[in-house]
Amino acid sequence: MLLIDDPAIMAEVTAMSDRYEAALMANDLDVLDALFRNAPETIRYGVGEVLYGFAEIAAFRQGRVGGSPQRRVLRRVVTTFGTDLATVNLEFQREGAARIGRQSQTWVRTDEGWKITCAHVSLMADGS
Amino acid sequence: MLLIDDPAIMAEVTAMSDRYEAALMANDLDVLDALFRNAPETIRYGVGEVLYGFAEIAAFRQGRVGGSPQRRVLRRVVTTFGTDLATVNLEFQREGAARIGRQSQTWVRTDEGWKITCAHVSLMADGS
Repeated sequence: MLLIDDPAIMAEVTAMSDRYEAALMANDLDVLDALFRNAPETIRYGVGEVLYGFAEIAAFRQGRVGGSPQRRVLRRVVTTFGTDLATVNLEFQREGAARIGRQSQTWVRTDEGWKITCAHVSLMADGS
Repeated sequence: MLLIDDPAIMAEVTAMSDRYEAALMANDLDVLDALFRNAPETIRYGVGEVLYGFAEIAAFRQGRVGGSPQRRVLRRVVTTFGTDLATVNLEFQREGAARIGRQSQTWVRTDEGWKITCAHVSLMADGS
């Protein structure tokens, strides 16, 4: 029987997600790097890029002048499975933009703590 | 120590991903529904929609005349963590379309077998 949304695990992952969002808005590269799993399997699909492996993700952030556009989180759903896996899905709106953005992250508990193992960020299209 | 990409688990999840892709192309709603975890926590961010909970996802598929546009998978990365968690990330191109699409799925092993607990599909923008 899968343990879903255990309160203690939820609290841990919610705090990690808060930390990620604050670092993203501050363009704090050290923290952003520290929150992604440093491994070749780590993947980040961004709004306009596909990045395979931690090195590509870190290089992208280094080259992103000014960091991410400022944004407001409209809705966030944290879901935890067992004690070592969680997903964070959220909708956001960038300052001055009409379109809704979506961010999905999968977190795993590693020997070094909770890390993002894959992420996908996109702006919603008008139709599918 | 996190067990990554155990061959037996990789084989299981790769087969599930193959099954999903075939069902998507055939618009086989029974199989597509069966591969998503039937729970309120299940989330699917599509190219042009945000869907919260299994019921919204199933209703969207019912209303999607003709199903998903036909597509070709360009690159797929299956990664497994331990024995009960996996992610599938892939790039695709829809027939006749120039833009690259991306699909991310998080799979968990449940009492009913492997299920998708969240998915995110988007078309890559020209810039981020």
